[in-house]
Amino acid sequence: MIRLNENFVNIFENTQRKPQLVHNITNYVTVNDCANILLAMGASPIMADDIKEVEEITTICSALVLNIGTLNSRTVESMIAAGKKANELGHPVVLDPVGAGASKLRTETTHRLLKEVKFSVIRGNISEIKTVYAGAGTTKGVDADVKDAVTAETLDATIALAKELAERTGAVIAITGAIDLIADAKKAYVVKNGHCDMSKITGTGCMLSAMTAAYVAANPEKALEAAVCAVASMGIAGELASRQVTNNQLGTGSLRTLIIDNISTMTGNTIETYAKITLIP
Amino acid sequence: MIRLNENFVNIFENTQRKPQLVHNITNYVTVNDCANILLAMGASPIMADDIKEVEEITTICSALVLNIGTLNSRTVESMIAAGKKANELGHPVVLDPVGAGASKLRTETTHRLLKEVKFSVIRGNISEIKTVYAGAGTTKGVDADVKDAVTAETLDATIALAKELAERTGAVIAITGAIDLIADAKKAYVVKNGHCDMSKITGTGCMLSAMTAAYVAANPEKALEAAVCAVASMGIAGELASRQVTNNQLGTGSLRTLIIDNISTMTGNTIETYAKITLIP
Amino acid sequence: MIRLNENFVNIFENTQRKPQLVHNITNYVTVNDCANILLAMGASPIMADDIKEVEEITTICSALVLNIGTLNSRTVESMIAAGKKANELGHPVVLDPVGAGASKLRTETTHRLLKEVKFSVIRGNISEIKTVYAGAGTTKGVDADVKDAVTAETLDATIALAKELAERTGAVIAITGAIDLIADAKKAYVVKNGHCDMSKITGTGCMLSAMTAAYVAANPEKALEAAVCAVASMGIAGELASRQVTNNQLGTGSLRTLIIDNISTMTGNTIETYAKITLIP
Repeated sequence: MIRLNENFVNIFENTQRKPQLVHNITNYVTVNDCANILLAMGASPIMADDIKEVEEITTICSALVLNIGTLNSRTVESMIAAGKKANELGHPVVLDPVGAGASKLRTETTHRLLKEVKFSVIRGNISEIKTVYAGAGTTKGVDADVKDAVTAETLDATIALAKELAERTGAVIAITGAIDLIADAKKAYVVKNGHCDMSKITGTGCMLSAMTAAYVAANPEKALEAAVCAVASMGIAGELASRQVTNNQLGTGSLRTLIIDNISTMTGNTIETYAKITLIP
Repeated sequence: MIRLNENFVNIFENTQRKPQLVHNITNYVTVNDCANILLAMGASPIMADDIKEVEEITTICSALVLNIGTLNSRTVESMIAAGKKANELGHPVVLDPVGAGASKLRTETTHRLLKEVKFSVIRGNISEIKTVYAGAGTTKGVDADVKDAVTAETLDATIALAKELAERTGAVIAITGAIDLIADAKKAYVVKNGHCDMSKITGTGCMLSAMTAAYVAANPEKALEAAVCAVASMGIAGELASRQVTNNQLGTGSLRTLIIDNISTMTGNTIETYAKITLIP
Repeated sequence: MIRLNENFVNIFENTQRKPQLVHNITNYVTVNDCANILLAMGASPIMADDIKEVEEITTICSALVLNIGTLNSRTVESMIAAGKKANELGHPVVLDPVGAGASKLRTETTHRLLKEVKFSVIRGNISEIKTVYAGAGTTKGVDADVKDAVTAETLDATIALAKELAERTGAVIAITGAIDLIADAKKAYVVKNGHCDMSKITGTGCMLSAMTAAYVAANPEKALEAAVCAVASMGIAGELASRQVTNNQLGTGSLRTLIIDNISTMTGNTIETYAKITLIP
């Protein structure tokens, strides 16, 4: 296992140099955070979900995020239409299957999206990704089920699952949690950044999916490494923010604000210093 | 009148020990705050409002919140379906009749919800609760009407109204404002925590309703005291946050963040020290 | 060119003395910010978008904001109904044509709104206002197109455009960006407050539109100057917040919070000291 931070500094800086306009069809819980994190990293957001405009909006953007956090019958159709248009244009599309497994609607929508749209990256917690993989899972709500947690013991099996799912879908698979795992069909990276307090706020997953779209759009030839860099940068922002919260005796409201602060002030040097990325060949 | 903080410390600590998953069908204005406050107090949120999934989502949760802040024809049907399912399963259901009295749609929806769903707690400002009570009121917008304010002079009459409404609906009635009043058919509590600056941000009422659902789910045999504890904890968080805002020359943007901070760092000792709860037998 | 801050102090203080209830039919990205900024300035928000209640809600308010940031077929009809009712009642109506030009739906909706509703103020970035003006533009997403930027060179032409559009629509035209320009058919003001970092967060435009509605409602005889005062106060809040961000080594998450803080603590003296308003006769 080797540390590869230099490559990721390049990806980070390349993303800063090429600001992307990202189309988000996403949930109304964390939509403001998604917009602000994209701006914080130097990209731009546009949120549009009416079927009459999603294809046109996707056309003027360079990436698309489909997040089913508060899906409904109307927006699911918009997701399909936007996804197909993005595929046609060769734009990267990121799927965030929030709560897949928690209801038939979420599971079936996830499977339908996978059938009708080709994704560049699928990012979720382990329960959601298992639902994507198996068509069934033990998802309880939108948090990962404790039984599913990726640990040192289950890491190898999870890598195998991610690689197989990557092979099957053609997408990079990003499984985030205590340990983050990002894989394509051939290789996998483990990212050990992040802080457990990040699970005490809503939106870190959604924000990461939005950021991932911008990273992949800016580095189209390196989708796997771009996704890894997005995961690492969110993890680092969470670590730095958690430390600031502790040092200043703050709480989770401030944690949310400080994560966005740390994304907005991040430099290549931050990645170089803090990223804990290892390649699992 | 006796101070009863010790009992409420038990309820608080019991709630922390038993994290609840709370299903919210709520408005898009304060939904992010509701999710973050639930996480801050140690519970978990799930927001889902499509009729095709609300019953299933409610089934995997332990409590339900119905908040009509930005109701529309589609989500009202989802509220009814989810409410009925939660009743069937014996889950506590909290009603937040935001703006009841301000429009026929809100008033009629409130009355329809009361007819079709059995609530454990109904929480609103005095104007909203009077609308629930009387089928008519002087609600102006989503803030309480000045004419309705609960004062020392009107306290007895308001307690009588709350008890009667509790008797009629079987729900605990929580009327929040400058003075907070929480009653079931037999007894009432007054909570004198909180700070007037809390009315300078949106969402304190909505967040409190979400928290109340988690408190009641964790203390099902003590719905009245659980609701009181939720009210007191939000009031205390508001007091502490207001003091921090003043000491650091901040404003209402920070107040919002600091309220969530104070909920996330609250302990049984905070309740013991700051709660101003009196029982009105 | 003369400095006119004293007049604007009067408008500011008049607005504080007469708190307005503002009806917002707006997008779900920045809706929480819009509610909080209205409360921060001493006004009150109500968000309601169901066709069954928008006319009634508008009736109990004193101003209306129509913001098409995440428009859909359902809410467009609500906008028209609310706008017509507000016109009937003589309430000021503010249009925020977010992303006009970026899709046919946004452009056509903007034109339809202009035909069916009489606006007191139309506020947008230069690309959006050009779309309003020309029925076509080069809008790319929801940010202004670089090609459109208002600079010293293009200022005169932009003033002429704004005045002509004001003449044609009867509305005050507010074009905000690096330089802010506010005009009616006869005269124009330039505001040089604000900070470039404000473009690194979402919502400053939407918040300004909401504030403008409250300012105009409180100063109905002086719609132009009321809009100017709203623009200046947002610009000043952005400047002060940006300075606090720099001094405390924070980032864009904090910038958002501090802008609301600075609106909530603003006094007539702040306007007197910091406003950079010039009249272009």
